[in-house]
Amino acid sequence: MAMLIISRRLSGRSPMTSSIAANLRWYSTSFREERDTFGPIQVPSDKLWGAQTQRSLQNFEIGGDRERMPEPIVRAFGILKKCAAKVNMEYGLDPSIGKAIMQAAQEVADGKLNDHFPLVVWQTGSGTQSNMNANEVIANRAAEILGHKRGEKVVHPNDHVNRSQSSNDTFPTVMHIAAAMEINSLLIPKLKQLHTTLHSKSVEFKDIVKIGRTHTQDATPLTLGQEFSGYTTQVKYGIDRVSCTLPRMYQLAQGGTAVGTGLNTRKGFDVKIAAAVAEETNLPFVTAENKFEALAAHDAFAETSGALNTIAVSLMKIANDIRFLGSGPRCGLGELILPENEPGSSIMPGKVNPTQCEAITMVCAQVMGNNVAITVGASNGHFELNVFKPVIASNLLHSLRLLGDASASFEKNCVRGIQANKERIAKLLHESLMLVTSLNPKIGYDNAALVAKTAHKEGSTLKDAALKLGVLSSEEFDTLVVPEKMIGPSD
Amino acid sequence: MAMLIISRRLSGRSPMTSSIAANLRWYSTSFREERDTFGPIQVPSDKLWGAQTQRSLQNFEIGGDRERMPEPIVRAFGILKKCAAKVNMEYGLDPSIGKAIMQAAQEVADGKLNDHFPLVVWQTGSGTQSNMNANEVIANRAAEILGHKRGEKVVHPNDHVNRSQSSNDTFPTVMHIAAAMEINSLLIPKLKQLHTTLHSKSVEFKDIVKIGRTHTQDATPLTLGQEFSGYTTQVKYGIDRVSCTLPRMYQLAQGGTAVGTGLNTRKGFDVKIAAAVAEETNLPFVTAENKFEALAAHDAFAETSGALNTIAVSLMKIANDIRFLGSGPRCGLGELILPENEPGSSIMPGKVNPTQCEAITMVCAQVMGNNVAITVGASNGHFELNVFKPVIASNLLHSLRLLGDASASFEKNCVRGIQANKERIAKLLHESLMLVTSLNPKIGYDNAALVAKTAHKEGSTLKDAALKLGVLSSEEFDTLVVPEKMIGPSD
Amino acid sequence: MAMLIISRRLSGRSPMTSSIAANLRWYSTSFREERDTFGPIQVPSDKLWGAQTQRSLQNFEIGGDRERMPEPIVRAFGILKKCAAKVNMEYGLDPSIGKAIMQAAQEVADGKLNDHFPLVVWQTGSGTQSNMNANEVIANRAAEILGHKRGEKVVHPNDHVNRSQSSNDTFPTVMHIAAAMEINSLLIPKLKQLHTTLHSKSVEFKDIVKIGRTHTQDATPLTLGQEFSGYTTQVKYGIDRVSCTLPRMYQLAQGGTAVGTGLNTRKGFDVKIAAAVAEETNLPFVTAENKFEALAAHDAFAETSGALNTIAVSLMKIANDIRFLGSGPRCGLGELILPENEPGSSIMPGKVNPTQCEAITMVCAQVMGNNVAITVGASNGHFELNVFKPVIASNLLHSLRLLGDASASFEKNCVRGIQANKERIAKLLHESLMLVTSLNPKIGYDNAALVAKTAHKEGSTLKDAALKLGVLSSEEFDTLVVPEKMIGPSD
Amino acid sequence: MAMLIISRRLSGRSPMTSSIAANLRWYSTSFREERDTFGPIQVPSDKLWGAQTQRSLQNFEIGGDRERMPEPIVRAFGILKKCAAKVNMEYGLDPSIGKAIMQAAQEVADGKLNDHFPLVVWQTGSGTQSNMNANEVIANRAAEILGHKRGEKVVHPNDHVNRSQSSNDTFPTVMHIAAAMEINSLLIPKLKQLHTTLHSKSVEFKDIVKIGRTHTQDATPLTLGQEFSGYTTQVKYGIDRVSCTLPRMYQLAQGGTAVGTGLNTRKGFDVKIAAAVAEETNLPFVTAENKFEALAAHDAFAETSGALNTIAVSLMKIANDIRFLGSGPRCGLGELILPENEPGSSIMPGKVNPTQCEAITMVCAQVMGNNVAITVGASNGHFELNVFKPVIASNLLHSLRLLGDASASFEKNCVRGIQANKERIAKLLHESLMLVTSLNPKIGYDNAALVAKTAHKEGSTLKDAALKLGVLSSEEFDTLVVPEKMIGPSD
Repeated sequence: MAMLIISRRLSGRSPMTSSIAANLRWYSTSFREERDTFGPIQVPSDKLWGAQTQRSLQNFEIGGDRERMPEPIVRAFGILKKCAAKVNMEYGLDPSIGKAIMQAAQEVADGKLNDHFPLVVWQTGSGTQSNMNANEVIANRAAEILGHKRGEKVVHPNDHVNRSQSSNDTFPTVMHIAAAMEINSLLIPKLKQLHTTLHSKSVEFKDIVKIGRTHTQDATPLTLGQEFSGYTTQVKYGIDRVSCTLPRMYQLAQGGTAVGTGLNTRKGFDVKIAAAVAEETNLPFVTAENKFEALAAHDAFAETSGALNTIAVSLMKIANDIRFLGSGPRCGLGELILPENEPGSSIMPGKVNPTQCEAITMVCAQVMGNNVAITVGASNGHFELNVFKPVIASNLLHSLRLLGDASASFEKNCVRGIQANKERIAKLLHESLMLVTSLNPKIGYDNAALVAKTAHKEGSTLKDAALKLGVLSSEEFDTLVVPEKMIGPSD
Repeated sequence: MAMLIISRRLSGRSPMTSSIAANLRWYSTSFREERDTFGPIQVPSDKLWGAQTQRSLQNFEIGGDRERMPEPIVRAFGILKKCAAKVNMEYGLDPSIGKAIMQAAQEVADGKLNDHFPLVVWQTGSGTQSNMNANEVIANRAAEILGHKRGEKVVHPNDHVNRSQSSNDTFPTVMHIAAAMEINSLLIPKLKQLHTTLHSKSVEFKDIVKIGRTHTQDATPLTLGQEFSGYTTQVKYGIDRVSCTLPRMYQLAQGGTAVGTGLNTRKGFDVKIAAAVAEETNLPFVTAENKFEALAAHDAFAETSGALNTIAVSLMKIANDIRFLGSGPRCGLGELILPENEPGSSIMPGKVNPTQCEAITMVCAQVMGNNVAITVGASNGHFELNVFKPVIASNLLHSLRLLGDASASFEKNCVRGIQANKERIAKLLHESLMLVTSLNPKIGYDNAALVAKTAHKEGSTLKDAALKLGVLSSEEFDTLVVPEKMIGPSD
Repeated sequence: MAMLIISRRLSGRSPMTSSIAANLRWYSTSFREERDTFGPIQVPSDKLWGAQTQRSLQNFEIGGDRERMPEPIVRAFGILKKCAAKVNMEYGLDPSIGKAIMQAAQEVADGKLNDHFPLVVWQTGSGTQSNMNANEVIANRAAEILGHKRGEKVVHPNDHVNRSQSSNDTFPTVMHIAAAMEINSLLIPKLKQLHTTLHSKSVEFKDIVKIGRTHTQDATPLTLGQEFSGYTTQVKYGIDRVSCTLPRMYQLAQGGTAVGTGLNTRKGFDVKIAAAVAEETNLPFVTAENKFEALAAHDAFAETSGALNTIAVSLMKIANDIRFLGSGPRCGLGELILPENEPGSSIMPGKVNPTQCEAITMVCAQVMGNNVAITVGASNGHFELNVFKPVIASNLLHSLRLLGDASASFEKNCVRGIQANKERIAKLLHESLMLVTSLNPKIGYDNAALVAKTAHKEGSTLKDAALKLGVLSSEEFDTLVVPEKMIGPSD
Repeated sequence: MAMLIISRRLSGRSPMTSSIAANLRWYSTSFREERDTFGPIQVPSDKLWGAQTQRSLQNFEIGGDRERMPEPIVRAFGILKKCAAKVNMEYGLDPSIGKAIMQAAQEVADGKLNDHFPLVVWQTGSGTQSNMNANEVIANRAAEILGHKRGEKVVHPNDHVNRSQSSNDTFPTVMHIAAAMEINSLLIPKLKQLHTTLHSKSVEFKDIVKIGRTHTQDATPLTLGQEFSGYTTQVKYGIDRVSCTLPRMYQLAQGGTAVGTGLNTRKGFDVKIAAAVAEETNLPFVTAENKFEALAAHDAFAETSGALNTIAVSLMKIANDIRFLGSGPRCGLGELILPENEPGSSIMPGKVNPTQCEAITMVCAQVMGNNVAITVGASNGHFELNVFKPVIASNLLHSLRLLGDASASFEKNCVRGIQANKERIAKLLHESLMLVTSLNPKIGYDNAALVAKTAHKEGSTLKDAALKLGVLSSEEFDTLVVPEKMIGPSD
């Protein structure tokens, strides 16, 4: 039957969008029968999944392999199922079965069984099928550990692995575990590294006075270090922003079961399992204050996505500045020299492009889009269950991964190697008309404006214009117009 | 000249989009001459604004009166300019002029001079023209207070009112003042009231057991109070979310002047003015840690908008639930009875619609859209100045006002009056098949599924099906299937 | 009673967000009683609206005056009600009443009764209350025309003015009328003017060869006219894009009544009324092919908003280019000289900013946000009626007005006056290294790269580098490197 | 060296987000040296790519395998490079090399060399590196075909495969080819199938009269067929919408080379290559009217994405209706019976969920988010080149694939099998109060309202209420209130 499925997949997709190779990945020469409440179904012998996973595979041919449930979700299922078995043993689960489940679940947590999680994001909106996928894989693997065969249900996916649980509480639980782990192990460390490097550049450039630009027009001077200190602060606040959302991300739905009431669990189960997950992950997970909210809403994901959206806003600004300040080599602003990592153009030799800026700003655009996908999904929950869970989870994890990786790449391949083009910076600074601002306190706004306008019109320097207009002496001008004195308040 | 302008406005707009009445508002029979660095210009005699405001009015005919800079911005300018005069007097501003400015600025803060702020959002992206509008109005009003005429510049808009300031630091400062005040005086109080009322409903309904719904399908029971406790928690977290963003909203750019360096200010000016604003508003404003970030980025607005977006997500979910639970009167779910506030339909007499749910969910859609406008604007800053300030400010203030007002209206005109339709709730609960879940621990998942499927197929009760299948005795069934026992974990 | 309401409004709003003046607008010294199925209610004597409008005013205190239903909707109601009366007379409506309704409706269409339409967008999601507002105002005004008093219901808002109609078909109908009229009378003419001016600039600049920029880096040359031809094409396609959506916008829901069936109308009513509206507006309106779709979905608005979003994308690109190309005066790219319309900075005299670019790019950000608000609203329709109509309508009309006005302002105050800075353009062109590309066919990609790299490293010209490396003679270089020959394919 | 890279990849990624297995995929035991203008670099021997691909792989470790450039782009490169070789032979390319390129390119077009395209979306914003990937793979494969070794550059990636091309015109060209092919071969056929099935349901259900619902409240009746005809029309218009955007999608940038001028091409090259692509794909591609627009802007993608966004709006509405109409089995609306495809819940046996509705509505949320990502990317182009090309392309192709696949899945696994629950429909219809509307013409709006209110209050039928109130006789009632007569206009 699986062979029939395969041929259907092959014919159903246009040759444009799905290769034969990708489909043949599912090909197996032998099958075993698995069974659920719907009846028997053929499953590839070399796979650990069971009947419900197989049905989902056939019912949701949407998007292909690229759309598989994100790996952090799969691994979080491993963590959760291990913890559940541990707590269930306290409540009477047969220890031999419990231990086998724990061992099998650990393999899932380690990513060793990734190939047995074939389901795509575009499935049941509760993630039920991925929960069953985890239950089935762990049950079959645990059975093997105990010396039994796959499909025999010696370890039962529902009665043992999913004991005291419902998809409705496990899926939001793994969503929170996965997101919190990615934030702590990927995003924040990478942002911190970027922050450190930006800060060191800010220090390195602290004495380089340059022209400021407002409205993209020449403005009063500042130091290149000050300019970079703004970027540094943006990244620092970005870390604060995402950190602020963690208290709600650390709340786990587990123990709410089907609708939030905790039916079919024992008192205390919710607290114990949150503690077990906290211990396992070394993160301060707690049981959710209100399980009804935890199943029916994913506001925590919308909130964190809002913080990521803000980080994207920051990074877009920073990367845009860097590419414009590094534009040239001869016909742009040319104040920064960016590292050359690769040949830039296939037709224009010698050209080096700000490709790291381009990659990270594309990531920012994606994160902004993902935020809308999450918003739409999170706002469409109904009654006791939000059924946009997989799309919400996959978009947040996508944003986290992309922002973390892109921050690292940008730091390593761009920011770290930025050099100031001191000659160019000095040349632009001294040609500028905007130093006129320092004349304001002395000759008043209207006269200062006149000096600037005159120099602009005549293509002359400010000094020439000031002298010609007779508003200042040469000495006065030289005393007043000192860029180095214009980079802070006066005493 | 203003008459010429007016006639141009009249002819330039199609009759469809701009009424004569609206344009005639600008009509004045007499004019005075005002002057700026561009030269003289005619200004209506009865208006306090000056040359730069008048130019903006003529150069940005975009959107009409509805698009005026939001009132909270205008009022925040009053607060800021008052505080600036106060601090400037410490640094040598003539006290008579300073006091007159303070008095005039207080009138702006009180909303008494709103008619003198005609400029629209769609102007210079730095908000310079609105800053000049404030400077000009306050200068002319202060001159009047001192017994002089408008336009004489006895009090100078730049040299006195704008002293030690630049549009580039005043506009972000008023953005933060306005947003923080709206959050504290409008949004949070209204959300708290909504939270209180939802909580009281949760208590009121605590003993009403009802059918749960997941995937919009019948599920295990919970109490109506539990259902409302989920909504209560969502609103509570919403308050937490927006509160979390305030530390960055309380940071004021003032003192950064043109590019963030503080050129043309004296040391300590930034700290003093933040303290003055804090005292004036009774909110914990501080000077921004990094002025370069404070001018060049508006990440704080993107962050707060992300929190508002999340609140919109929450309110959309709550209002959708309430309208569906109140659907009917006879062909819907009918579990809630919503207050009747108005006749619902012009053709269907007797019909009463969930109009408050409709208004607030429309507000939520708007807030989600505004979040994208803010995101786009905030991400497009360049170099030392983000020039999407007015669109960022107006969208956040729009979202704050709409969410605050809509929460109040929803609370007062809907939530407060919600009644449970106890008969209907009980009827649905007892018809449900999902009580079968409580049989799981006794007869196992597969048998329980069989009972439910049988009842479903035959249109019978669960009990009939269980007895027919011989899996339980009548007594066992009655002992096991007690909805009231299904609303929490077991001991 | 209305006085009591007013004082409640005054106390309910913080002084920050709502001025006394705005509220006092509603103040009236005398009242009359109006009545609906809910009973009697006091209405200000000087207003034409009736009971249902008054209730809405009290039940939806959301957002204040700025949030009133857009004027194009009000005017479209005038057009529709006039046409309805005309067609209803064919089906038996008393001609004296019918003619009075037509006259009163014409006054609404002319914008003469705008002050009698106080309701905000944030009301019933079907727009029922604005439909009743129109019915009530027209009924009372028609009664006056016939010599009767307001409130007597000689002309009945439902039985006469709303005859054969339901809010459920009138509101989508006025949405389509208003949007189609704004597109045709505002947006498209303004875009055409912008297109014409961009095209004339493209012709004006056709012989000015300049450096191209890709990745913001120097690239091979093109003419400034070619660069502007790209903008011209973008605007041209923008007009095509919005025009493509009109066939679905011209479909009117009228005749569908409550759920799309046309209950309570007579056969042919739908066709006749669409014809009447077409005649009245001179636009090719037709009756909607499927009335169920026309009430339950507003996909046509999402589609048109998608076109406007694309136009915003185009204008953002164009305005960004123009501001960067005009950046300077001395430390930017400086290739374009933009018109000076106002003093740019309150602290930096002599500075002139690209304010028109800033205004239009802010508009673009808003249009992108509005598109999301519309998307969310349009996707949330249920069963026979989408109840996000007002938010969908107001956002589209907002986008149309802003894009139209901003295009006009941008054209008049910016594009029309753009001058090429020919000296600067020539200087940058001849300093560029990217002319090396023209060596590719002669010396191959790798050698050309070497020449460019050498010149870059040594700060020399391309020619010096080429000669030094011995890959070309001086004559060969001069023959090959001719920017004017690099602006098109070779023969 | 590649081994070093691998170990860096392993250590750089947290164990949470990247499996060992995934990284080992890149492991190779032997390497060959490839070379570009940056110098030599080691490349896995079993891969066809060259130096520039290898550099990108090392410089952009963002997102991992899931983020590879979409397959339709890779295949379109095959098509384009084949056509380019063909046209280049007309302009003098050595025929033996040309033919080998054509053969190699065909293998790319057939998806046979997918494993040789490892680059992710998050690279150079021009897609240069993917263009070079294609050039390198095809050059090496063509060399092999000619009997030479990889890396020898007998066929040169730039001078031969990329001849007369630049990344700047090839990448937008493959974007358009890929999108147009996916629209024509995937999206439109699947939407047509969905349309056909919805239409057949509309016909099947044409005689089933049911209660209508507006504001989620009971309304006047319609047929279930009419309800489905609305959905049918939505899908039909969706096909129209995306089709309307095709004229601009069929325009190819090829021939513009680096900045749009066509430098380094021969006259006519652009027209010939568009013709070749048209012939190859059987789609009406033409050369872009303006190459500057075609490189610098991707408005065509924003436009098409706007159409897809509208389709998502439509499908969200349809799927929401279907899941609510199918809600139950006993406590929901229950008018539709949806096909059972899998067990729905791991804890609630017997429950069957509307999982296909859930999958497709999640897809709709994603498409709405993707639209924003595209909007942000498309609006951020600068000067002669938009450098958000890969993110724009990948999001549009993602939306196309998901909408196509989800429409097919929804049609096959849900819509096709929908049955009407006629008993339930009839029961609800006859309990409804809204049939009162048919009394309007006879007894007037106010009396009809009174009848409905009375029945509602007393829980009685409309008829009982009408008789009790004495407004109608029993016979009159029976004659007037006939649901079957309420589903259309009267004669």
